[in-house]
Amino acid sequence: MSDTNAAWGGRFAEATDAFVAEFTASINFDQRLYRHDIEGSIAHATMLAEVGVLTEAERKAIVVGLESVRDDIAAGRQKWSVALEDVHMNVEAALTEKIGPVGKKLHTGRSRNDQIATDIRLYVRDAIDGLGAELTRLQQGLVGLAEQEADTIMPGFTHLQTAQPVTFGHHLLAWNEMLQRDFERLRDCRKRVNQMPLGAAALAGTTYPIDRARTAELLGFEKPTENSLDSVSDRDFAIEFTHCGALIMMHLSRMSEELVLWTSAQFDFIDLPDRFCTGSSIMPQKKNPDVPELVRGKTGRVYGHLTSLLTLMKSQPLAYNKDNQEDKEPLFDTIDTLAGSLRAFADMVPHIQAKRNVMKSAAIRGYSTATDLADYLVKKGMAFRDAHEVVGKSVAYGLDQGKDLSEMTLDELKQFSQTITEDVFEVLTLEGSVAARDHLGGTAPIQVRAAAGRARTRLAERG
Amino acid sequence: MSDTNAAWGGRFAEATDAFVAEFTASINFDQRLYRHDIEGSIAHATMLAEVGVLTEAERKAIVVGLESVRDDIAAGRQKWSVALEDVHMNVEAALTEKIGPVGKKLHTGRSRNDQIATDIRLYVRDAIDGLGAELTRLQQGLVGLAEQEADTIMPGFTHLQTAQPVTFGHHLLAWNEMLQRDFERLRDCRKRVNQMPLGAAALAGTTYPIDRARTAELLGFEKPTENSLDSVSDRDFAIEFTHCGALIMMHLSRMSEELVLWTSAQFDFIDLPDRFCTGSSIMPQKKNPDVPELVRGKTGRVYGHLTSLLTLMKSQPLAYNKDNQEDKEPLFDTIDTLAGSLRAFADMVPHIQAKRNVMKSAAIRGYSTATDLADYLVKKGMAFRDAHEVVGKSVAYGLDQGKDLSEMTLDELKQFSQTITEDVFEVLTLEGSVAARDHLGGTAPIQVRAAAGRARTRLAERG
Amino acid sequence: MSDTNAAWGGRFAEATDAFVAEFTASINFDQRLYRHDIEGSIAHATMLAEVGVLTEAERKAIVVGLESVRDDIAAGRQKWSVALEDVHMNVEAALTEKIGPVGKKLHTGRSRNDQIATDIRLYVRDAIDGLGAELTRLQQGLVGLAEQEADTIMPGFTHLQTAQPVTFGHHLLAWNEMLQRDFERLRDCRKRVNQMPLGAAALAGTTYPIDRARTAELLGFEKPTENSLDSVSDRDFAIEFTHCGALIMMHLSRMSEELVLWTSAQFDFIDLPDRFCTGSSIMPQKKNPDVPELVRGKTGRVYGHLTSLLTLMKSQPLAYNKDNQEDKEPLFDTIDTLAGSLRAFADMVPHIQAKRNVMKSAAIRGYSTATDLADYLVKKGMAFRDAHEVVGKSVAYGLDQGKDLSEMTLDELKQFSQTITEDVFEVLTLEGSVAARDHLGGTAPIQVRAAAGRARTRLAERG
Amino acid sequence: MSDTNAAWGGRFAEATDAFVAEFTASINFDQRLYRHDIEGSIAHATMLAEVGVLTEAERKAIVVGLESVRDDIAAGRQKWSVALEDVHMNVEAALTEKIGPVGKKLHTGRSRNDQIATDIRLYVRDAIDGLGAELTRLQQGLVGLAEQEADTIMPGFTHLQTAQPVTFGHHLLAWNEMLQRDFERLRDCRKRVNQMPLGAAALAGTTYPIDRARTAELLGFEKPTENSLDSVSDRDFAIEFTHCGALIMMHLSRMSEELVLWTSAQFDFIDLPDRFCTGSSIMPQKKNPDVPELVRGKTGRVYGHLTSLLTLMKSQPLAYNKDNQEDKEPLFDTIDTLAGSLRAFADMVPHIQAKRNVMKSAAIRGYSTATDLADYLVKKGMAFRDAHEVVGKSVAYGLDQGKDLSEMTLDELKQFSQTITEDVFEVLTLEGSVAARDHLGGTAPIQVRAAAGRARTRLAERG
Repeated sequence: MSDTNAAWGGRFAEATDAFVAEFTASINFDQRLYRHDIEGSIAHATMLAEVGVLTEAERKAIVVGLESVRDDIAAGRQKWSVALEDVHMNVEAALTEKIGPVGKKLHTGRSRNDQIATDIRLYVRDAIDGLGAELTRLQQGLVGLAEQEADTIMPGFTHLQTAQPVTFGHHLLAWNEMLQRDFERLRDCRKRVNQMPLGAAALAGTTYPIDRARTAELLGFEKPTENSLDSVSDRDFAIEFTHCGALIMMHLSRMSEELVLWTSAQFDFIDLPDRFCTGSSIMPQKKNPDVPELVRGKTGRVYGHLTSLLTLMKSQPLAYNKDNQEDKEPLFDTIDTLAGSLRAFADMVPHIQAKRNVMKSAAIRGYSTATDLADYLVKKGMAFRDAHEVVGKSVAYGLDQGKDLSEMTLDELKQFSQTITEDVFEVLTLEGSVAARDHLGGTAPIQVRAAAGRARTRLAERG
Repeated sequence: MSDTNAAWGGRFAEATDAFVAEFTASINFDQRLYRHDIEGSIAHATMLAEVGVLTEAERKAIVVGLESVRDDIAAGRQKWSVALEDVHMNVEAALTEKIGPVGKKLHTGRSRNDQIATDIRLYVRDAIDGLGAELTRLQQGLVGLAEQEADTIMPGFTHLQTAQPVTFGHHLLAWNEMLQRDFERLRDCRKRVNQMPLGAAALAGTTYPIDRARTAELLGFEKPTENSLDSVSDRDFAIEFTHCGALIMMHLSRMSEELVLWTSAQFDFIDLPDRFCTGSSIMPQKKNPDVPELVRGKTGRVYGHLTSLLTLMKSQPLAYNKDNQEDKEPLFDTIDTLAGSLRAFADMVPHIQAKRNVMKSAAIRGYSTATDLADYLVKKGMAFRDAHEVVGKSVAYGLDQGKDLSEMTLDELKQFSQTITEDVFEVLTLEGSVAARDHLGGTAPIQVRAAAGRARTRLAERG
Repeated sequence: MSDTNAAWGGRFAEATDAFVAEFTASINFDQRLYRHDIEGSIAHATMLAEVGVLTEAERKAIVVGLESVRDDIAAGRQKWSVALEDVHMNVEAALTEKIGPVGKKLHTGRSRNDQIATDIRLYVRDAIDGLGAELTRLQQGLVGLAEQEADTIMPGFTHLQTAQPVTFGHHLLAWNEMLQRDFERLRDCRKRVNQMPLGAAALAGTTYPIDRARTAELLGFEKPTENSLDSVSDRDFAIEFTHCGALIMMHLSRMSEELVLWTSAQFDFIDLPDRFCTGSSIMPQKKNPDVPELVRGKTGRVYGHLTSLLTLMKSQPLAYNKDNQEDKEPLFDTIDTLAGSLRAFADMVPHIQAKRNVMKSAAIRGYSTATDLADYLVKKGMAFRDAHEVVGKSVAYGLDQGKDLSEMTLDELKQFSQTITEDVFEVLTLEGSVAARDHLGGTAPIQVRAAAGRARTRLAERG
Repeated sequence: MSDTNAAWGGRFAEATDAFVAEFTASINFDQRLYRHDIEGSIAHATMLAEVGVLTEAERKAIVVGLESVRDDIAAGRQKWSVALEDVHMNVEAALTEKIGPVGKKLHTGRSRNDQIATDIRLYVRDAIDGLGAELTRLQQGLVGLAEQEADTIMPGFTHLQTAQPVTFGHHLLAWNEMLQRDFERLRDCRKRVNQMPLGAAALAGTTYPIDRARTAELLGFEKPTENSLDSVSDRDFAIEFTHCGALIMMHLSRMSEELVLWTSAQFDFIDLPDRFCTGSSIMPQKKNPDVPELVRGKTGRVYGHLTSLLTLMKSQPLAYNKDNQEDKEPLFDTIDTLAGSLRAFADMVPHIQAKRNVMKSAAIRGYSTATDLADYLVKKGMAFRDAHEVVGKSVAYGLDQGKDLSEMTLDELKQFSQTITEDVFEVLTLEGSVAARDHLGGTAPIQVRAAAGRARTRLAERG
């Protein structure tokens, strides 16, 4: 506000410093709330008319005016003014210019404190719905690919060491489970977003006979909030949403890490389509997995926004403080980062091409069926600890000789235990190993297909 | 593991370095999981017997043995061994010492990877229930105090400047709303905690014919998890829980900030009982609000744990990696910090003594009914912007003369607008101001009492 | 890169996806590096000519061309292209358009990997110098105000409880010490920023006979970096700088907290000029300390960026990964936030008006000289513990009677100890209390003046 | 403090609640400061005697008593009491028990507020020196290994794609550069740690004629701090130290990531000695790189502590607040984590065994000399962009045929450019490629040896 004619100037002897006006204005970043601001204002005007604070003619003028302002903004015709501080006052000024002094009646019984809280909640609610749709699309891609690769054998890793063979489909469904939780968390978060602060006014409520339940209904809110002081200062929903976003990014960072590993010359498990990769201006042979790398890098961004919002709210006394203006940029950037990252993944995942032969020969190389050999001995009556010792020695021998367990002769195996007979080779195959893990959650192809089916059902039920 | 006789020693040529053994062992902090570890093992043995992997006699020996180990630990008779690395192997060794080699059969069809995931989930589930009870106790105290102070008038602040009068009861219910959301968030989090990873074994499931649904039922889990790779590596639930904890601490930091302000000589709004304060060894007059200050300081602790866990999981490839051992200390300390802080607050809050006269005279001093004067003028037909200007000038005059609005004569007020008449003084009283905010969520005492009633109902329904 | 004619397209069969091109491009935020990018290129071309890789004519064409591109950009005539990905390729394309194919020779012996590392370091170095100047200006304001208020007595607080009287000048110099450390930390950080990665090329160095010491000299770098792999992947300097920024914001948050407290009706210790405050559109009496509130809120922002950058670099294998593109936005926003916040404070601080009478009477009210009474008794031979007890009882009596220690009669004081005589009243004055703390770092006005003098000297030496 | 006889009990009507006493006490974690607390007290007593506040006999009694208390604690004979709150009061009580009431004179002219600030600074100073020595040991190991592997060729990666050949020694020196910066940062941090707050007393200084410069000299501090209010509240040094620790852990996480990759079956570049690895109780073939994994996991821990301390200090008003008690546990755990992680790495690094043949054949496989081919064409007069295109097509052909560039015949190469002649094969060798990057910071073996020599000199100069 750069002059004493400002809305709140009566008590002031001196104009706001020009730099201070710029520094404290939010219009440069909160203008993106305009649709939700206008949506809230239309509902507010409608309610005010219903309770008799506005006449029907006033309501109509206001609604028509707001819709016209919205069209102007959408068409790029709005001139945003820093002197008008924020989206609320810019919209109100545009409205008043269109419809005259009646425009000012819109602000009856509310304050910018409850208005901004309402706008952000509407905005985040939409964001959750949009992100949920992208999550669903990405999950559909994963489940489809998992079904296609339900029989593809790859090494399963713990400690990035070959552990036991698993199927690639099973691995992909592990990713799907992460995203499934993300979707459910967003749905829970949405319940707490979807409550209406409007009517809290500056901090204590208003002296006008407002009907908050009605405004909530008009805006699709589940209910009005319970306490005015809390309503204007609460930003829990922004933090909870950003936390959901941090977990989504964490999950994408884990997938990214694996995609980067798998496209390395050393793993060489998959191919990514060229269109998701970039090259090097210097090294002509390079095909870089830019998308997963960049998404992995963006993880820090959302973690940072979570830190930022938690810090913001720490130790804030009631009710609204100017600090809260700082909630918007981290929130908006979280939404943008999630939207871009999920879109890139949802586009890319269905086109991941498994190099089945490479995966399989990697699974053979790493003594991945050693546990199966131990289980075999146990089932023949040996104590597990003794079996473990026998297999450990067989592996040591294999490392020395450069042979996998399945490549040893029966005589070589018998060096370590006479209990081993010809039937051991069934157990040492990769196919036998994965098929044997045949229970809910196990890696057997039959279980992977069943799990994919259940996943599809859950996705379909989202409606 | 300090020698090559260790359970996994067969493949190794060299003993673990003594410092490395110490550095990588978790027994010093994971021993606190022993009850849940044993609970899980008893259920696992029961299931194994039901599916025929253990005989009934073996099951019985194992269960009796485990109960005896549990009693030993509870009585402080257990010698924890770093060489045995963790709580699982310490308990198993103690069991085997008691019941002989049959003790080793307990580990059939599972691995430490799924075992630890199960233990932590059981532990966190209990923690959520305990913390929920403390939250309820604290909320009961708040609601009780709010009812008692439903008519007590204090200044409501925005920007820590006197804004409008509110009631102290209304302010306390704002705190209650924060905690209500915390309770609901924990309840949502509990759903995702309460799923059973056991049966995932090392990473791929097991070749034994286990019945995961049965084990889940025995342990009170809602269901088994869907994917073995995800099950052993997932720590979302720990992060989500810590996030819930971060919000609880944030809320307590906000209450603490206000308690510290209110006990300052400058505010002097409340008294805290001596038993929640400490003095100074140097300054004999001091009575320091140590509990709220310390709780405010502990906020950073839980924020830090959240950062820690998010960092831990970033970019981890599937499935289990040793990194995950680092999940426990932040989680345990979060639980302890929450338990202590909530207990301290639940004990203290009912004993907060409002200094009603001080609060009221503070509300009078700060032109807190200026909005009421503006609303008065609007209701008499003046445009709000003009009314704002009139009031702004009245306040400027008051600041100059050292008079509140209610202390001015009618003639003084009429200087700024002839619209003002004798009935203005009704509006300028604090009581009139708060009573006029009479809608859902407003500060009118009648609304505060209704809100407290609704809050009580919600608390009662927790069961 | 949206088509296969891109610089790196030879190996690729398929065009980059349009969304992927947008998602992975950095030009929207890295264009602000253009001056430093061109500065680096000019130095690089100069060195290449000196070692014979470019002819003098080529060098001249390139330098003139780059200067012309810089002028175009400064004048707003540059069309930034997402298809050209980043600032480097946009500038190079503009150059080549101006001077023809010779423009492409500029990229000889370097890569975008070492180029971007150089650009950011140049940019951060400039930022440090600019922020250092603002810190100095703010400190000058503080020291000036401290000298002016060297005798102004206010209550000193611990636990926000009145502890002992201090002077306002002393309090302001505490703030100055915080900023002094910030300046020194930035200076140390600058040493590590000011090292030149150029010449590392993509990761391993180049086969051209470059002279890195010469380029470093031309760019004012202290020296070239030691290792090419480290050079292209290192972002320590960005993290260290952001950490310096986090501490600066933390300090400003502490000052802000106090400014907000002091402008509250309850403290009322200072006035801020109207031009640094804003009002309320609803409450005509409000004068909100927006600037300190907003700066306090911005603290979280920089904390978040620090978290973001630390997360970014965690677990990154050598050498350059695309993740690193995410270093710029947090860094740029940190710089902007610091610049704005320091400017606002440097502008505002000299105009803080102390309400000396209010401060003084607050110091009298809170038994702030209780320690002086205890010290008085100790100097008369009483054990400190006994003295503490005597004073504690006097304070309890005072609280009961509503009297400060200095307001009690000698007889009243003698109730608690016969050791007290008429000379006690000297000790109980605020002036006596502060003057008695007369040692380096103490609050005595004479010490405050000396400390301000030393502070001025340190500021003057910055040159 | 559980009863009203406590040192500060005179003003209090009611005993501290037992739980509150436990909750607010710090003795359980601050007892580890005892050596530094006693060291500070001895210096304080010495100074007090020199300025005449204590007699020589009193000083002697106190010093002898404190030394005896220290011996008792070191020998495990001290009974720590929660009722005595903290290490300061526990030590003082033990002293007084030994030497009678004269023990209480020790606390003259100081407060626990400046005492704890001094203790932590002494403790952190020692920690920096100890960690510096471990950093040096680790760097020595790296430089030694780098010299040994100066000629060992491995693929250099960007985007985890094979980029250009580098030497393993060069890669190890990149790690060394990270740690070199860490060492320098700690040294800069130490300057700000090494300043003495003692004499600030509670907040305002003391009325006793203390000589702070003398106490600083006795304790090896560079100088006394400048401002008493700042001295008791400043925790910048703890944050800055933790930040240095976060960067060290970040660097170790990067090394860890690479060690984990390199020990995977897919990379197989190195062997780690068995004694730094552990196995699996289930999978007999596993050899897990536990130490690097765990260290990577511990990164989050220190990041978390940094977040915690920054949060702690945000918005704290001057001077000391109880919040600050929360500074110690994050700080102590940071020190322990760093000490353990650096020790484990310093022990392990010299025993990393490079699998030179595997590294070399990996370097051959990935078209790593493609840049060299492009440079070759440029030196023959082709424009770089055209050369890039030629090489890109050659690589595409190679991918199709399963041939590296060096495996193609001259005729095959000539398909893409007639400019290529027999001398190309020199350029396409790995040895030729690395040797050609022969400038400061480049990967040529001769440069690696020179860099290692410079590194050794810097290490030697640490003294």
